[in-house]
Amino acid sequence: MKSRLITEYELIPEKVAVSETLYHTANGYIGVRGCFEEGVPSGVKSIRGTYINAFYDTEKLHYEERYTGFPDYSQCMLKVVDAQSIKLFIDDEEFSMFEGELVSYKRILDAENGMVERVVQWKSPAGKEIELTVKRMVSFSQKEAFLTSYHVKCLNFKGLLKIVSSITSQVSNMSAEHDPRLGTSGGNRLLVKKISQSGNISSLECQTRNSGLTSICSMSNKLDTASESIVTDTDNSISETFELHVEAGSSVTLEKFVTYTDSVRYEDPFKDNISINQSIQSAGFKKMVALQKQYLDEFWNHSDITIKGNDDIQNGIRYNMYQLLQSASNDMYSNIAAKGLSGEGYEGHYFWDTETYIYPFFLFTNPDLARNLLMFRYNTLNGARRRAREMAHPKGALFPWRTINGDECSAYFPSGTAQYHINTDVAHAVTQYWQVTNDHEFMADYGAEMLFEAARVMYDIGLYRRDGKFVINEVTGPDEYTACVNNNYYTNLSTKHLFEHCGNVLKLLKDLYPKALKKLAAKIDLDDDEVPGFQKAASAMYLPFDEELQVHPQDDAFLDRKVWDIANTPKDKFPLLLHYHPLHIYRHQVCKQPDTVLAHFLFENNTPLDIVQNDYYYYEKITTHDSSLSTCIFSIMASRIGDEKRAYNYFTQTARLDLDNIQGNTDHGIHTAAMGGMWMAVVFGFAGMRIVNGELTFRPNIPSEWKQIDFNITFRRRQLRISASKTAITVKLLKGEAINVFVDGDMIELQPEEVTA
Amino acid sequence: MKSRLITEYELIPEKVAVSETLYHTANGYIGVRGCFEEGVPSGVKSIRGTYINAFYDTEKLHYEERYTGFPDYSQCMLKVVDAQSIKLFIDDEEFSMFEGELVSYKRILDAENGMVERVVQWKSPAGKEIELTVKRMVSFSQKEAFLTSYHVKCLNFKGLLKIVSSITSQVSNMSAEHDPRLGTSGGNRLLVKKISQSGNISSLECQTRNSGLTSICSMSNKLDTASESIVTDTDNSISETFELHVEAGSSVTLEKFVTYTDSVRYEDPFKDNISINQSIQSAGFKKMVALQKQYLDEFWNHSDITIKGNDDIQNGIRYNMYQLLQSASNDMYSNIAAKGLSGEGYEGHYFWDTETYIYPFFLFTNPDLARNLLMFRYNTLNGARRRAREMAHPKGALFPWRTINGDECSAYFPSGTAQYHINTDVAHAVTQYWQVTNDHEFMADYGAEMLFEAARVMYDIGLYRRDGKFVINEVTGPDEYTACVNNNYYTNLSTKHLFEHCGNVLKLLKDLYPKALKKLAAKIDLDDDEVPGFQKAASAMYLPFDEELQVHPQDDAFLDRKVWDIANTPKDKFPLLLHYHPLHIYRHQVCKQPDTVLAHFLFENNTPLDIVQNDYYYYEKITTHDSSLSTCIFSIMASRIGDEKRAYNYFTQTARLDLDNIQGNTDHGIHTAAMGGMWMAVVFGFAGMRIVNGELTFRPNIPSEWKQIDFNITFRRRQLRISASKTAITVKLLKGEAINVFVDGDMIELQPEEVTA
Repeated sequence: MKSRLITEYELIPEKVAVSETLYHTANGYIGVRGCFEEGVPSGVKSIRGTYINAFYDTEKLHYEERYTGFPDYSQCMLKVVDAQSIKLFIDDEEFSMFEGELVSYKRILDAENGMVERVVQWKSPAGKEIELTVKRMVSFSQKEAFLTSYHVKCLNFKGLLKIVSSITSQVSNMSAEHDPRLGTSGGNRLLVKKISQSGNISSLECQTRNSGLTSICSMSNKLDTASESIVTDTDNSISETFELHVEAGSSVTLEKFVTYTDSVRYEDPFKDNISINQSIQSAGFKKMVALQKQYLDEFWNHSDITIKGNDDIQNGIRYNMYQLLQSASNDMYSNIAAKGLSGEGYEGHYFWDTETYIYPFFLFTNPDLARNLLMFRYNTLNGARRRAREMAHPKGALFPWRTINGDECSAYFPSGTAQYHINTDVAHAVTQYWQVTNDHEFMADYGAEMLFEAARVMYDIGLYRRDGKFVINEVTGPDEYTACVNNNYYTNLSTKHLFEHCGNVLKLLKDLYPKALKKLAAKIDLDDDEVPGFQKAASAMYLPFDEELQVHPQDDAFLDRKVWDIANTPKDKFPLLLHYHPLHIYRHQVCKQPDTVLAHFLFENNTPLDIVQNDYYYYEKITTHDSSLSTCIFSIMASRIGDEKRAYNYFTQTARLDLDNIQGNTDHGIHTAAMGGMWMAVVFGFAGMRIVNGELTFRPNIPSEWKQIDFNITFRRRQLRISASKTAITVKLLKGEAINVFVDGDMIELQPEEVTA
Repeated sequence: MKSRLITEYELIPEKVAVSETLYHTANGYIGVRGCFEEGVPSGVKSIRGTYINAFYDTEKLHYEERYTGFPDYSQCMLKVVDAQSIKLFIDDEEFSMFEGELVSYKRILDAENGMVERVVQWKSPAGKEIELTVKRMVSFSQKEAFLTSYHVKCLNFKGLLKIVSSITSQVSNMSAEHDPRLGTSGGNRLLVKKISQSGNISSLECQTRNSGLTSICSMSNKLDTASESIVTDTDNSISETFELHVEAGSSVTLEKFVTYTDSVRYEDPFKDNISINQSIQSAGFKKMVALQKQYLDEFWNHSDITIKGNDDIQNGIRYNMYQLLQSASNDMYSNIAAKGLSGEGYEGHYFWDTETYIYPFFLFTNPDLARNLLMFRYNTLNGARRRAREMAHPKGALFPWRTINGDECSAYFPSGTAQYHINTDVAHAVTQYWQVTNDHEFMADYGAEMLFEAARVMYDIGLYRRDGKFVINEVTGPDEYTACVNNNYYTNLSTKHLFEHCGNVLKLLKDLYPKALKKLAAKIDLDDDEVPGFQKAASAMYLPFDEELQVHPQDDAFLDRKVWDIANTPKDKFPLLLHYHPLHIYRHQVCKQPDTVLAHFLFENNTPLDIVQNDYYYYEKITTHDSSLSTCIFSIMASRIGDEKRAYNYFTQTARLDLDNIQGNTDHGIHTAAMGGMWMAVVFGFAGMRIVNGELTFRPNIPSEWKQIDFNITFRRRQLRISASKTAITVKLLKGEAINVFVDGDMIELQPEEVTA
């Protein structure tokens, strides 16, 4: 792979905030936006921020008309102590790229080495020139560590250099009253509890205002030149100042070691923090870089996709995969936020995005991490049970539509709590995990419990209609441009699958894990007739179909709505949700993203391909793609129906969604789900990979624009390498025992040697 | 009639707040809750308050997820200066009914004289006895005036009597975060602008915090015994103190004259206030009492209903009619709040309650006032047009679901803005007015404009389905226990009627008022094909009907919902809206009030009576009557289908709803709509009155419990008196020209002499 993935060569003030997202550094635990160490002048939009996954504050939710079961409090991933700050003074001049002359500028996100590097040549207003090279890294090998190497070369002067390295709790979350995609209660919510010094380590211990969580941020600095330093502090910050006399041509490097810990994960977060800080100091920047490279070699080895034929797309694909890695939690306390750890859009909440869009990437490249993601849901199952009771369901669990700590915190239920499909989405991830890993024990120990509890609530909201069909009313499907509808095709179909899988899992437990089953049945008070009841409902499940148009209506009433005139809607009226009252949108045939098409992708059943095709073109006409989750699905399913042009066209819109700021809100953070969707569009779309009756199958349809694609996946402890072009496909078994796969319907026996189709 | 309508003989601390509602005094302009002049001790629940109709403050509405078209600010009928306070001191003891010995207590609401009287005999802790007689009156002849006569008789002591009469702006609106029926932003919002003294008149001029409205409250006091008084003031109150030496057996009477004016209605509210205060002082309490009696004689003459055979019901009926009079605005700046002027439940907002439940009472007893109520809607038509644009309707007007100033202020659209039937309800009142009064000019000048504008929005939300039917999606009917449904029977049927009336009105204008039509067409840019379009849609209107059950479903999906098990729902879980998440309620067949049954009442069409009957019994089983608007409709329609037992039973629940605090929230104010509903249950229910093809008809079905009912109505400038028993009905023409009426299908020619059927 090309080691340097993306580079910017120009400093454009209007794009600073977007670039802060694009060049953020994260490791699933901490995320640091790509802000300049020295800051920006007022007037330049910057969203300075550092986040810890699942480190949140709560705020009481206010409703003008409050009803039972409305969540009591919000959750907001909080900005933690900012440790990015390094200020540089040359004699009396302060370094700023926005003053003097910026001779050259370059910033590189290096996804091979896992760091971001900025190289700047700058002439001060007084004519003093420096070259600045800043490398920053959030460590994958030591998740608490954020490291900066700050190298200054003095080009043409002799004088006094002052470097001030700081950490500060003066941070405020964003808020926006008129944009439902941001929270409404921003402000500083981090209260300093203790400022302390231990050896060369300075620490700020902070507590959240309401949730009572604690986080510690420590800093130590090392200069490669003998120099005294002074540590000073205020109520909310600590600075270490180095002063030294420099000559023209001389260089100096500051290494800044920052560590974060928190009370969510650590028993003694302060002690642990200090000890980790000491350990990374002794390792040093260089050693940490080496470990980072090692980690990433492994990652790319399992995950890389190479495209021959289009460098931009190749760039986009790798960028997106790297961002997914940066975003994904590897512990059971957290998950993957809608914006990863790159910004505070959607308040750092976890949605169905994880299970439906991002999960497959990890499942097929890093099954252990995929298992962890499921464990987050398992660990929050009690919250989901409480939520089900709040919603008047006597049994079962209702997963939260959006959450950090497992409690529902969606304040607008028509496109929040009403999305009961979150239950089937989580369940789908569980059954996918089972199919891909054959990890029966996980199913016996955790999966079955999640499935049965999720199914109970879906069963409770359904009923048998007079014609004997099982129907599900008053839910919102994934497409939020209609809400609280009856018989949403996606919800009904995914529930049918959940119900069927409950039967499969019950059989597994009966056959192989009778003890686990007994324990589970006692724990959740499972009646003998419950799962058979689910299975019966699955058979009777109503799936709306319109005979005249030969399409599946998104819901019972969908086709009786007016068709939105997308072509004649002014461009500045998109996304519709920001410009029209929900009732007006709900009254139309218009989709933010295509429910039904998604259902055909996720739950391939016996729907004839020509009907799938009808649905595709029907919904395409009325979809605005206001959701970043839309185009990837259109790409995948275009591949499925053999519409190569659309498959490729939609793919390009997905692949560079953030790099090109296509949705216009990349400053709020990356779109992790779209990134996962891009991976799916390659693997499930172009390579046509599916699991059919437990077998791995491929039905490739590679774009003519590309010479070849290559990617690796992990399936049932085997590592496979797939190489495909327009005309040929090769599946190699890189590791693991012999296995059969299917290509275009033909069985291929893979031995630990190469096989060609 | 019995002059003394209701009386309480006991002071029960737990019922103080309810009695404050029941014994409030109002005149459609000002309303004073029946609080004790001297106040109550802390610990006794009291909601002290005085209101001016349509005098409101605004507050920014807060949404955790805000979408386009959500109202920006709330409106809240504000507590104005409290002028009820009169404190009494005997030597060093302060009078309080909650200390010492309350020898006797009586409070009478006298609806014949229009006042409330309290007679108390009290022994102080030190053994001093007094008899206190307080009369208070809010004047119908001078709407700005609130008068109190405070009479103290000293029974057994000699000493110093001190009387302190005050007005104060220290008042706070109620708020309750967890009860959607109250507002959320209470507190004091009345800022004192000026305290002044002019002769013996003391005035407080106050301004609202946000809406910028001003109100003035002035007080003057007159003691019948020569005594000096001292006037003192603080930042927010003025007191006048009288001290005098009394002997055993002596009496003293204080007359307190209070006047309110406001900047909504008066050009110089201060000057007007002073001059009105002077004028009522010179008139004196006695003269004002005489004028009050005169006004009420007229009222009862036009409105009274007498029931022979049940005093409790008789009491309830008169109480309710009197409350309607107290609540109804007689100017174009205001309307009738859901709780009248008796309390601050529903924040003093105007709903469809006025047009649908209260309006007929005034229409048939006081058509001028009925016309004024329509003029309020006409005067707020521009606001309704703005609202329609906010909701993306290119033409027409959408009346606000709840409002004071004409702007929508419902913060929860599923049971707010989604109730588009507000448009058909207002229109129905307009066409009713037209039918009952034959006031064609009103229709030409105002009515047609309201109808056409309302119809445009209803037309815009509908569409022709593939089968040629005109359908209306995504609205909430009157029953808020389902929301955002498709083809709500009530909405579709009422829209059909509106559309048909547009045709009738267009014809009227073409025939009789071509100039007015031309002017209107130019004003609202009415195309020639618009009204014909409405008429076509009326003919094609889809009205859901279930062939199997032979009932009209409340909406398309209604019969596919689970039936709520009302019998097995614990009593403390009602009203459901306070105990279950909306989605849970929406997912069931359960009604707060019966939409479809109401539709059969309001829009009698060709539905066969056996289907009406089916609907009645079907919906009765699933109605909780959580709405106070429910039982009256069940009573009326039970009369219609000949179910005498139910008609009477539901009627009794309606007739004494507040007197017996049946809904448990009379402390928040009276239920004006239920009171109007009671009147309808007598006149439209038991007497079976309807207008059929423009003719007045009766189909009486008098309860066996009653010997006879008598009532007066006004119809097309005639005053009629109807007397009916189980076996006979008499209709007398009291005033006006000859007219034909129909009784049980037989035409009766009424000459200015009596006719018996």
